[in-house]
Amino acid sequence: MKKEACGLFAIYGHPEAARMTYFGLYALQHRGQESAGIVSFDGQKMFEHKGMGLVPDVFKEENLRQLPGDIALGHVRYSTTGSSQIRNAQPFMVHFKDLNIAIGHNGNLINTWELRQELENEGVIFQTTMDSEVIVHLLAKYLNGSTIEEALIKTLAKIQGAYSLIILINNKLIGLRDPLGFHPLSIGKVGSSYVLASETCAFDLLEAEYLRCVKPGEMVIIEEDRLNSIFFAEPQKQSSCIFELIYFARPDSIVFEEEVYLARKKMGTILAQEAPIEADFVMPFPDSGVYAAIGYAQASGLPFEMAMIRNHYVGRTFIQPSQDMRDFGVRVKLNPVAKMIKNKRIIIIEDSIVRGTTIRTRVKKLRELGAREIHMRVSCPPIRYPCFFGIDFSSKGELIASKQSVNDIARFIGLDSLHYLSLEGLKKSVSWKNNFCLACFNEEYPLKPSEKCGKFCVEW
Amino acid sequence: MKKEACGLFAIYGHPEAARMTYFGLYALQHRGQESAGIVSFDGQKMFEHKGMGLVPDVFKEENLRQLPGDIALGHVRYSTTGSSQIRNAQPFMVHFKDLNIAIGHNGNLINTWELRQELENEGVIFQTTMDSEVIVHLLAKYLNGSTIEEALIKTLAKIQGAYSLIILINNKLIGLRDPLGFHPLSIGKVGSSYVLASETCAFDLLEAEYLRCVKPGEMVIIEEDRLNSIFFAEPQKQSSCIFELIYFARPDSIVFEEEVYLARKKMGTILAQEAPIEADFVMPFPDSGVYAAIGYAQASGLPFEMAMIRNHYVGRTFIQPSQDMRDFGVRVKLNPVAKMIKNKRIIIIEDSIVRGTTIRTRVKKLRELGAREIHMRVSCPPIRYPCFFGIDFSSKGELIASKQSVNDIARFIGLDSLHYLSLEGLKKSVSWKNNFCLACFNEEYPLKPSEKCGKFCVEW
Amino acid sequence: MKKEACGLFAIYGHPEAARMTYFGLYALQHRGQESAGIVSFDGQKMFEHKGMGLVPDVFKEENLRQLPGDIALGHVRYSTTGSSQIRNAQPFMVHFKDLNIAIGHNGNLINTWELRQELENEGVIFQTTMDSEVIVHLLAKYLNGSTIEEALIKTLAKIQGAYSLIILINNKLIGLRDPLGFHPLSIGKVGSSYVLASETCAFDLLEAEYLRCVKPGEMVIIEEDRLNSIFFAEPQKQSSCIFELIYFARPDSIVFEEEVYLARKKMGTILAQEAPIEADFVMPFPDSGVYAAIGYAQASGLPFEMAMIRNHYVGRTFIQPSQDMRDFGVRVKLNPVAKMIKNKRIIIIEDSIVRGTTIRTRVKKLRELGAREIHMRVSCPPIRYPCFFGIDFSSKGELIASKQSVNDIARFIGLDSLHYLSLEGLKKSVSWKNNFCLACFNEEYPLKPSEKCGKFCVEW
Amino acid sequence: MKKEACGLFAIYGHPEAARMTYFGLYALQHRGQESAGIVSFDGQKMFEHKGMGLVPDVFKEENLRQLPGDIALGHVRYSTTGSSQIRNAQPFMVHFKDLNIAIGHNGNLINTWELRQELENEGVIFQTTMDSEVIVHLLAKYLNGSTIEEALIKTLAKIQGAYSLIILINNKLIGLRDPLGFHPLSIGKVGSSYVLASETCAFDLLEAEYLRCVKPGEMVIIEEDRLNSIFFAEPQKQSSCIFELIYFARPDSIVFEEEVYLARKKMGTILAQEAPIEADFVMPFPDSGVYAAIGYAQASGLPFEMAMIRNHYVGRTFIQPSQDMRDFGVRVKLNPVAKMIKNKRIIIIEDSIVRGTTIRTRVKKLRELGAREIHMRVSCPPIRYPCFFGIDFSSKGELIASKQSVNDIARFIGLDSLHYLSLEGLKKSVSWKNNFCLACFNEEYPLKPSEKCGKFCVEW
Repeated sequence: MKKEACGLFAIYGHPEAARMTYFGLYALQHRGQESAGIVSFDGQKMFEHKGMGLVPDVFKEENLRQLPGDIALGHVRYSTTGSSQIRNAQPFMVHFKDLNIAIGHNGNLINTWELRQELENEGVIFQTTMDSEVIVHLLAKYLNGSTIEEALIKTLAKIQGAYSLIILINNKLIGLRDPLGFHPLSIGKVGSSYVLASETCAFDLLEAEYLRCVKPGEMVIIEEDRLNSIFFAEPQKQSSCIFELIYFARPDSIVFEEEVYLARKKMGTILAQEAPIEADFVMPFPDSGVYAAIGYAQASGLPFEMAMIRNHYVGRTFIQPSQDMRDFGVRVKLNPVAKMIKNKRIIIIEDSIVRGTTIRTRVKKLRELGAREIHMRVSCPPIRYPCFFGIDFSSKGELIASKQSVNDIARFIGLDSLHYLSLEGLKKSVSWKNNFCLACFNEEYPLKPSEKCGKFCVEW
Repeated sequence: MKKEACGLFAIYGHPEAARMTYFGLYALQHRGQESAGIVSFDGQKMFEHKGMGLVPDVFKEENLRQLPGDIALGHVRYSTTGSSQIRNAQPFMVHFKDLNIAIGHNGNLINTWELRQELENEGVIFQTTMDSEVIVHLLAKYLNGSTIEEALIKTLAKIQGAYSLIILINNKLIGLRDPLGFHPLSIGKVGSSYVLASETCAFDLLEAEYLRCVKPGEMVIIEEDRLNSIFFAEPQKQSSCIFELIYFARPDSIVFEEEVYLARKKMGTILAQEAPIEADFVMPFPDSGVYAAIGYAQASGLPFEMAMIRNHYVGRTFIQPSQDMRDFGVRVKLNPVAKMIKNKRIIIIEDSIVRGTTIRTRVKKLRELGAREIHMRVSCPPIRYPCFFGIDFSSKGELIASKQSVNDIARFIGLDSLHYLSLEGLKKSVSWKNNFCLACFNEEYPLKPSEKCGKFCVEW
Repeated sequence: MKKEACGLFAIYGHPEAARMTYFGLYALQHRGQESAGIVSFDGQKMFEHKGMGLVPDVFKEENLRQLPGDIALGHVRYSTTGSSQIRNAQPFMVHFKDLNIAIGHNGNLINTWELRQELENEGVIFQTTMDSEVIVHLLAKYLNGSTIEEALIKTLAKIQGAYSLIILINNKLIGLRDPLGFHPLSIGKVGSSYVLASETCAFDLLEAEYLRCVKPGEMVIIEEDRLNSIFFAEPQKQSSCIFELIYFARPDSIVFEEEVYLARKKMGTILAQEAPIEADFVMPFPDSGVYAAIGYAQASGLPFEMAMIRNHYVGRTFIQPSQDMRDFGVRVKLNPVAKMIKNKRIIIIEDSIVRGTTIRTRVKKLRELGAREIHMRVSCPPIRYPCFFGIDFSSKGELIASKQSVNDIARFIGLDSLHYLSLEGLKKSVSWKNNFCLACFNEEYPLKPSEKCGKFCVEW
Repeated sequence: MKKEACGLFAIYGHPEAARMTYFGLYALQHRGQESAGIVSFDGQKMFEHKGMGLVPDVFKEENLRQLPGDIALGHVRYSTTGSSQIRNAQPFMVHFKDLNIAIGHNGNLINTWELRQELENEGVIFQTTMDSEVIVHLLAKYLNGSTIEEALIKTLAKIQGAYSLIILINNKLIGLRDPLGFHPLSIGKVGSSYVLASETCAFDLLEAEYLRCVKPGEMVIIEEDRLNSIFFAEPQKQSSCIFELIYFARPDSIVFEEEVYLARKKMGTILAQEAPIEADFVMPFPDSGVYAAIGYAQASGLPFEMAMIRNHYVGRTFIQPSQDMRDFGVRVKLNPVAKMIKNKRIIIIEDSIVRGTTIRTRVKKLRELGAREIHMRVSCPPIRYPCFFGIDFSSKGELIASKQSVNDIARFIGLDSLHYLSLEGLKKSVSWKNNFCLACFNEEYPLKPSEKCGKFCVEW
């Protein structure tokens, strides 16, 4: 499956636009560690710098100096293994007639295969495997005799799937979300400069004020310091990605106008109501389970502990361990506090179970340290179906819940009990303002990819 | 002040000694981020590789390949600014007659100045400013006609201060702690190989079994797979560094035979008893205050929250922010969850207050977000006196508590109330087995540095 | 002006195709130091690695490992300052339907502007400023319903200017030269593998046998170890670039079936006949003038000396000199042997004079060292007109000969006499087999760029 | 054998002392490519930066900024393989009492082993294997109650062998040469600043005026802008290293008050007289044989050619060639011009033959290209004996002339005739002012290393 979960940031009319974008991406680093890129526009020319790796590794002071201008657009891309390449780094920048066009995309289209077929039949060549390139080709095609806005609306009418986009066309900055609103995009303001970002934590870092979400089907156009809004599509039933709240977004962010921290805590609270059990304490596998664990502990009245310690330096590549160091990759990240585990009845809170193998190794270690009982509570329902809209479960391997029952999973991991948050519980964790895509739990895809495209999206 | 807080690791008789040492240092990275080094011995020759930076940056696969042999000794050094240099990286390796000698030191001597004077009068030249070089010169001097053990005992009789040492002399590996036992050093075993490490978290990562501490005044000699023990000094009242428990050691480690996690939690528990207050919740400034905050929350019955979110990618150097981004360095590390703060009465748990300026900035931010009351509880007494034994307070600037009253500090930071753990409370947090150096709180230095040396140690 | 002087190399059917290409580029490094790239094809997929800098800096062992397959195509690009970017590195690789297409180009098109206009009107977007991208778009356009060869012939009918091209389309390797044969491209064979290269020195390094030139207007198609030849254009009067022989190609190469070494020596020989003068010795400014100086010395009977010594380590970037180190950049490359210069009458042989300022600095230095007479003989006529076909004079600044008489130039440089090789003399230096483009000397452009395009080519 | 051929540079009283030293080392790069280092003194503290590799790779702008002060001392070290290490990079810097001492050494001591024994018996430890460390320990020993000059004279009385030294002791800069004057060291002046350098080419680059050689047994002391001279040893028969003139120094340098260019040319001239032969032309294997070849060509009246072309980019490490690319390392450096070789009778001028294997490969290639006759003339006598004073023949392997007759060597290489310059001829090539060490040709060592030390020097 293509990995399209990414972070977007842009700023308009700031004397240090590229530097601000650098810090915006820094705050969004958790959304993509594979590559980072910034494009700037100085009124005449467009400049870009992209590279593989983390934001502070890709950009040095001299790179920023070569990104002049007061408009900038940045992108971070998800970490993958193997075939990831610099040519697939974003923003994707092209020239068309007298226009410089740069585009950053978060999400995944489901009719890419058909669109590429169609475009190739018209003689279009492709340099990358990115959806962004398809979008730009369509845009160029429709720009013939149309305004930018018209061409863009025609383009959006052709593409299907999940897309939060930021597009810079000369000195026009456009932010938009697909009509179903799969992925987030927010509007902020710092001084007189508008900023766009995938998550509000980027605004916090820059001390920008959070104004509002870009709405599903809305396109905001920032030009000469004014922001105009156009709705390019009919209102539909919103299908925002619930996984942004469960796992993906930073806990200090607001996405889809939901407070992530509160949503996660609420999941834990409801989990405690749905599946209470006697125990000595509640603990997360840090960091993902922390906030639901806090919610669970408060609701259950059980003590909260952090008895698995995270190595803060993990994340940097290290040398291969010796052959006899089994499960090293799991062990190096989290180390249990032996004394806390021995003879204890423990409730572990996890945000999700994908393949289950890492969790199994950790649970086994807790058993070795003498844990008396180990119960697991998961803050979402079993993930049974693939995502076509930008969340890459399959990179972690096959979905254990698609083939095994909850009991089988509990046995596989070595748990005394296992409970997943119910779909109803999950829905109650978030506000009623929003409607979420729950397809990975219930197979109710808001959009159905064609068979061809499904295959293409997955195997490309 | 010299920065001597460091991490030590060694292994004897393992076919992948350097690789195991690499991972040992990886686990001890929190004890020193300035430089890292490994020395190995293959029965004939001694090999070394050292560099500035983090362990995974200093060592690549090819460096390990150039460290053959089944004995290895590694060292990580504290991060400092400015004058830190590769020549001060450890282990410090020299040749003397047919001996290859490598030494790693954690701690700080207090009679360095006098010893250097004395040695220079005998014609000794120095290449570094490290205590280790002084120790090796003394060792060489006494080796004339003595066994290694005898010469080492004579050397140790000359030096005063804090020293956990690991010394490799050809195929003899020696670990020792000063008679007052300032800093930790533990013995473990993996397969048939002995390992030595500053903290037991290194054993956990390598799946080594923790055997015991090296005792104050004890020297353990590992040779041909046997471990012998010699006590080189009369037993004295132990003076282990309490700061290892308060702040420095990893929470999953055992140091001085104390469980760090439990000690920190106990500090929080006692703090709750000493200074209870009504509030909506308890929260740490992560990560240092987490465990005391858990203790405080459990003892007080108040909810535990993690409403300040840590950026996991901080630690890497980044580009300078714009001039108008005030307090950026503070903001980039922790970001509060606005919704959790507004209108709340908050108890913040900190492990210690050195200069107070960073904390002040954070508290100010919480006020801006609408916190109703902000109370701070600190899990140690006010730090009023400098440390001569290896904990570098002054690098963070002047000690606020040496000049201001608790009330003044509360006002400076902007708190509604501030309470420090009492000395009695601190003592109760740790087991009675140990006696600790509390000089930074009560000026009762277990060893008094001479005036000259005091100056030298600080100003060098 | 665009800098399109580049080096091309490709190999077909060799188990270590990428490695061989690496060494081919290594031998062609003098043709381009800005960037280097290799594309390989393993029967299924196309792989690429490109980077800024010299071949040994861009490619490491691990990069080669990621270029599997037995067909490879490589490119080195001319060194420029400022706007050069990784996105303009070649080979240029795209996907079109089920085809992987990679292209390497040496030369410069003169109707790029018109072609881009035309293509953009058809909706084509551009990611680079390279002619290669234009060529590929045309190719894609014509591939609709045509064979690769037909589409390529249609494409070539559209483009005007100088182009030696190597194109890899899946497992078909195509080498071709424009009908006027501006730039070189040769065919060789190593074992059973065909190789293509800009210069034969690449064959020598790989111990490949030199077979012949690709002819002007010829396209050779290598597939399944057979080489087929198609002439895609009517024979025209050949216009090979004489500067390849004067300066650009390596002296141990054969280009246009001319021995470069012999041609340069012959230029010196004729120069001696055209402008003899009494002197103590003849010397080159190494390395470019060496071979003509040998010819001049032999023809004149005067001693040959190498009294200007070249620093072999120059080429690597160095730190900025102090402000008071005038002319440092000139001085660091060549240093005269003072004793050889004092009181001597010297004939200096240069291959060409572009701006004259560097030469002037050197001549001034010789005067300071006491040279009695300094005469200069230049192995080509005055360069008066810009080149539109790939040799970048303007990067070295304005052409002094376009504005000043020979006498004025002699006075500017500070020479006692100055003589340029006559156009007739230059023609006699090369064999009668070939016809050369002499437009930079006589303004007789074999192809006239349109006014638009002339401007575009220069100012782009 | 230890590799002690190195380059030295220092400057006193210049506001950009480190930068000037950087460029001085840049000019001396040919004397050492393994490591480079600079030490500076700002009146209070001494600063250093050293690293493995070439000067422009070791020093970046930021490194120079960290080398303040108006006195600086630099060193480049010979390229070796394998055991070379950063800890053996120079200048060697130590602290002794209130003195900062830095030392750079060119040459090789022959009583190092005895001195180390003696010092170790006094308790001295060694961190490196460098002679410089021995010298500094002696200096420290004698500084007790003596002035710096007295202590240095006592030190020099103890050491035997070849040493050109530059020593910086706080703000005193000292340059000296051993009493036999093995290696060069010259004095220059730029503005009001004295400079010292191994070769005068460094003065040329900095536009410094060459004043004179430091004399054998002389010590010049630069302090407060005055230069004082002391002779620390009785005058002896000078024994300067003839190899500096044959091969090692740059042709544009003056060493031992000899013009290197003229000396090399003269060797060629005498060679032509000693061993004339009919041929079509004379050519060098560039670059070492160029100047003797010019001399031979002029004396013999035969044409001079450069029919072996040197790859200017060689010197950078490259990827391993394929297994079937035989003799690649030889071929990549020099490529013959085939057309010039075929059917020709060729005289090749070489500066020396050490092992003969590289030359053999080249000659074989010339045969394959159809050379009719190949004669070799070597501009020094057969090298039969090892050097103990700093020229490392053995790194190139065993000396072929120590075991084989000239005829055997000719046969091994594949020559039609071979002639070495006679010892008498060599002596006539240089001026009568100097006396040279010719021990590698005639075994007349000016100093005899003890058996122990001989072994130590070689095997260390």
